[in-house]
Amino acid sequence: MKGKLKGIVPPVITPLTRDRQIDCAGLKKLLEYILAGGVHGLFILGTTGEGPVLGYELQKKMIEETCATVNGRVPILVGISAAAMDESVKLAEIAHRNGAYGAVAAPPYYFSLGEPELIDYYETLVRRIPLPLFIYNMPSMTKTCLKPAAIIRLAEVPGIIGYKDSSGSMSDFHEVLSALRGREDFSIFIGPEELLGEAVLFGADGGVTGGANLNPHLFVSMYEAANRSDLPEIRRLQDEICRQRKLYFIGRYSSSIVKGIKCALALMGICSEYPAEPFHIFEEKEKNEVRKVLADLSIS
Amino acid sequence: MKGKLKGIVPPVITPLTRDRQIDCAGLKKLLEYILAGGVHGLFILGTTGEGPVLGYELQKKMIEETCATVNGRVPILVGISAAAMDESVKLAEIAHRNGAYGAVAAPPYYFSLGEPELIDYYETLVRRIPLPLFIYNMPSMTKTCLKPAAIIRLAEVPGIIGYKDSSGSMSDFHEVLSALRGREDFSIFIGPEELLGEAVLFGADGGVTGGANLNPHLFVSMYEAANRSDLPEIRRLQDEICRQRKLYFIGRYSSSIVKGIKCALALMGICSEYPAEPFHIFEEKEKNEVRKVLADLSIS
Amino acid sequence: MKGKLKGIVPPVITPLTRDRQIDCAGLKKLLEYILAGGVHGLFILGTTGEGPVLGYELQKKMIEETCATVNGRVPILVGISAAAMDESVKLAEIAHRNGAYGAVAAPPYYFSLGEPELIDYYETLVRRIPLPLFIYNMPSMTKTCLKPAAIIRLAEVPGIIGYKDSSGSMSDFHEVLSALRGREDFSIFIGPEELLGEAVLFGADGGVTGGANLNPHLFVSMYEAANRSDLPEIRRLQDEICRQRKLYFIGRYSSSIVKGIKCALALMGICSEYPAEPFHIFEEKEKNEVRKVLADLSIS
Amino acid sequence: MKGKLKGIVPPVITPLTRDRQIDCAGLKKLLEYILAGGVHGLFILGTTGEGPVLGYELQKKMIEETCATVNGRVPILVGISAAAMDESVKLAEIAHRNGAYGAVAAPPYYFSLGEPELIDYYETLVRRIPLPLFIYNMPSMTKTCLKPAAIIRLAEVPGIIGYKDSSGSMSDFHEVLSALRGREDFSIFIGPEELLGEAVLFGADGGVTGGANLNPHLFVSMYEAANRSDLPEIRRLQDEICRQRKLYFIGRYSSSIVKGIKCALALMGICSEYPAEPFHIFEEKEKNEVRKVLADLSIS
Repeated sequence: MKGKLKGIVPPVITPLTRDRQIDCAGLKKLLEYILAGGVHGLFILGTTGEGPVLGYELQKKMIEETCATVNGRVPILVGISAAAMDESVKLAEIAHRNGAYGAVAAPPYYFSLGEPELIDYYETLVRRIPLPLFIYNMPSMTKTCLKPAAIIRLAEVPGIIGYKDSSGSMSDFHEVLSALRGREDFSIFIGPEELLGEAVLFGADGGVTGGANLNPHLFVSMYEAANRSDLPEIRRLQDEICRQRKLYFIGRYSSSIVKGIKCALALMGICSEYPAEPFHIFEEKEKNEVRKVLADLSIS
Repeated sequence: MKGKLKGIVPPVITPLTRDRQIDCAGLKKLLEYILAGGVHGLFILGTTGEGPVLGYELQKKMIEETCATVNGRVPILVGISAAAMDESVKLAEIAHRNGAYGAVAAPPYYFSLGEPELIDYYETLVRRIPLPLFIYNMPSMTKTCLKPAAIIRLAEVPGIIGYKDSSGSMSDFHEVLSALRGREDFSIFIGPEELLGEAVLFGADGGVTGGANLNPHLFVSMYEAANRSDLPEIRRLQDEICRQRKLYFIGRYSSSIVKGIKCALALMGICSEYPAEPFHIFEEKEKNEVRKVLADLSIS
Repeated sequence: MKGKLKGIVPPVITPLTRDRQIDCAGLKKLLEYILAGGVHGLFILGTTGEGPVLGYELQKKMIEETCATVNGRVPILVGISAAAMDESVKLAEIAHRNGAYGAVAAPPYYFSLGEPELIDYYETLVRRIPLPLFIYNMPSMTKTCLKPAAIIRLAEVPGIIGYKDSSGSMSDFHEVLSALRGREDFSIFIGPEELLGEAVLFGADGGVTGGANLNPHLFVSMYEAANRSDLPEIRRLQDEICRQRKLYFIGRYSSSIVKGIKCALALMGICSEYPAEPFHIFEEKEKNEVRKVLADLSIS
Repeated sequence: MKGKLKGIVPPVITPLTRDRQIDCAGLKKLLEYILAGGVHGLFILGTTGEGPVLGYELQKKMIEETCATVNGRVPILVGISAAAMDESVKLAEIAHRNGAYGAVAAPPYYFSLGEPELIDYYETLVRRIPLPLFIYNMPSMTKTCLKPAAIIRLAEVPGIIGYKDSSGSMSDFHEVLSALRGREDFSIFIGPEELLGEAVLFGADGGVTGGANLNPHLFVSMYEAANRSDLPEIRRLQDEICRQRKLYFIGRYSSSIVKGIKCALALMGICSEYPAEPFHIFEEKEKNEVRKVLADLSIS
């Protein structure tokens, strides 16, 4: 792989069977569906991938199956976020053995670390793992917000090669973009899909957008439109993204995003719909709302 | 064991060597020190025990060593809190094999669960583990606060035998106490040590108080004084607890409580002072503050 | 008045007519009802008194009417919390002219002040007003939590004669109590009524408890029982307080406490039930829940 | 005035003398400076204008002086945010008498209102005031976040003619933009200045940007560049805005933004630097940091 990673790197959901094993057939179908959309990489075991709530065995299986299926067609990033650093290291080693391109780590999410502790955490982690590392800012899950100053400092650490910002704060994101502009060896990705257009317009390298599980081509199109500053097309695609995003507001609680995507993929015939324990699949009422959202989209 | 668990059940810290292995000699010394204080049980791998930030191997070792050393002298509770339920189940199985009395689980701490999801979580978990379960409310770490209505409902679930409240909200605690008064098969423990006296005065069964690592007898005395409504003695002990608690405000960030206790235990010659990665031991300046606090206490 | 203020100082609700004027007849009846319960002072225009959401004219009228009716029988504290210090000063001057005993100020609640700014705020305010000042910690409304260190420092400022803690944190309250024990010129009051018993047991001077609008005698009894360390009576009264407190959980949102008390007082025939704009009175369904709670109390 | 309000509407700071009176000479100079930058309106007594922390007399004086000086050259919006609705109504009446174009109200900021209560609040307020109303979302100050569904609903209420979003959430802002696209009678403004470019690119009507006090032309240029989708110019201006914004991170606490702007204006010789009580002016060390930021800008 030459140069830094750029483009659309979907955070792949983890298809699970009813008894919460990896739905291997569904996973293969999903991966082919996403790859056919022209994406530039894949990110497994992130938040959308339910990484932290899967047990060790399922995480390992998910890494092996994905790497085998993709077989080098695009780079694979593997989420190694854990409360315990030893477990993150173990996951990174498995990812490395299976040919992953990089590891992605959110701050540890039990104790709430102060900024110097966060810097220490990432400096120690990157020394202990055999893969280059992306920093993953996900304050709604980890309670800890990595502020621009921390990211800018960590971007100097050897082995740290990128940043994924899911904080939702474009104000912070602009500070990072503005400070790291021109870095040819550091990738800056935006998480929330409704912010992809503006992020790329202002210099981001791409997006790790959950909605790309459902319509990878839509996000690849947005990435390309933003790269050529095609505003009319960007506005058109933004409206489509907003329509699709209504999936995330069906149901309540933070698990709804995963449930919404999984339910839609099941309705589209791609893979099974089960979230990890103790979450349940959507009931009929919610499924009907998912159907309604899908009916309004160009993928259906 | 007859009747429900009552009394002082210290959340034992996990002594670690410089290279972050279990400090087995230190652990033995610490356990004997705590037991000599007259405590009624032990709780390992809780927050004070850094359970969630230790890796699987260290957690397993800590269970084995503790159970072997204690050898049935008091009941042992084992923290099984994890982001993934499968990992909690694995820990509970290890605890069971080693003779633990019960398991203790905080809400999963990656996704933020809604109340019905929390109820589901505990109902599913208790069915999957071979030990009776204590619910552990620790919102500052898990972001999720178990409200009284949820606790009162979960107290009806077979296999759930107790509650540890570290929320710091005496208002919520009173609601639980008031609703579950007289339950001979359900234990209610308070976490924050400065609230032990009033909690027991109003009907709590005991405390899981971090400071009991340093001075187990102080907390056993408070428990006994509260049980006999000896207010002058309670006020005297409360002042001593407040003096000792100053240890927790040395340093910054939520890791300071663990660092403060470990540093004090090292200065007292009981065990090593290393916290789990990436946390550091206190520097000389902070150690001197620890020395000053210790000098003011009856244990020194 | 000799010595510091002690005992039960109810935060009096502000009875309003349907067109949101002071319900003067209702106010007189309410004041006589509360005074008959044996309270030691009155606090008007606090949170329960909806002080900050009443306009200037209503605040002025409430001060005048209350002071005239009470006519020196007990000391009157007047809430002067405002976003603008000039308005707090104006209120304190009105209170002074009408014979109030002291002013009570929460931190200004628009900008979020840092600790040194809060210290400055209170030092400046107390110099500008003609009345002694009580500090009022009410983080759920002001977003700013006064930590023990700030209170302990402000307790040294001439003119600041007391503290009312509505933070709900008994941990912080113990730190303040422990540091200011024995101060014969500084009053420490607890806000949340379910914490009155333990607060007084550990040395607090009394309570500013909203429920005393409905049953002043209950809280006076708890204060006296705690002062003589009568634990069986304290536990009995605590249960009654917990039953009464169910009023606060009818309806939703933070306005429910005021609505619940006003609705109950209206049902008891004491005064009108209207909250300040834009809040509405309870609907029939919620009124029935209030009736049910009342039916279970010794006042009904 | 024909059509809806569009463009750059700076939230004017309130120049105060050392004894906290309106600095009338400074205010005139500031208004002329801002108007010379080509702005499309002015917003006084907002957060940057310290509206809620000025007393009633200062608010009245600020309205009178500003309206007299501007004398109809651009429309004037007046902040009427208050904890008490009666005070908001009084301010709106004063604004109306002085010829203001509209009123701007954040949610009341003492009690935390639920969504139906917020809807009620705005519906009641707009009926009681003699001016059209802009809704002002400012959760960091008011603790209450107006979500897109509430804004979309309030946009249907007669008399409510616009929305200013200072939440910092571009995700929520896109939802509002997408739902209200094409409304020729409703203005949508962004607050945070670093988000102005993207907001206008995606359809916002303009910005209420604090930095326009210092360099109004910069923000007018960004507005125009975004309107013609001139991406290279937008990126250039964005960098200048990011450089200027460093002013806001000098000092600590939420008062720093106002202090930073006022200090810079004083150094530029435009008006006095005093913030409202109890805030202090910057000390020499911080002033030097302000000088350094200014030296790096095109205005200096």
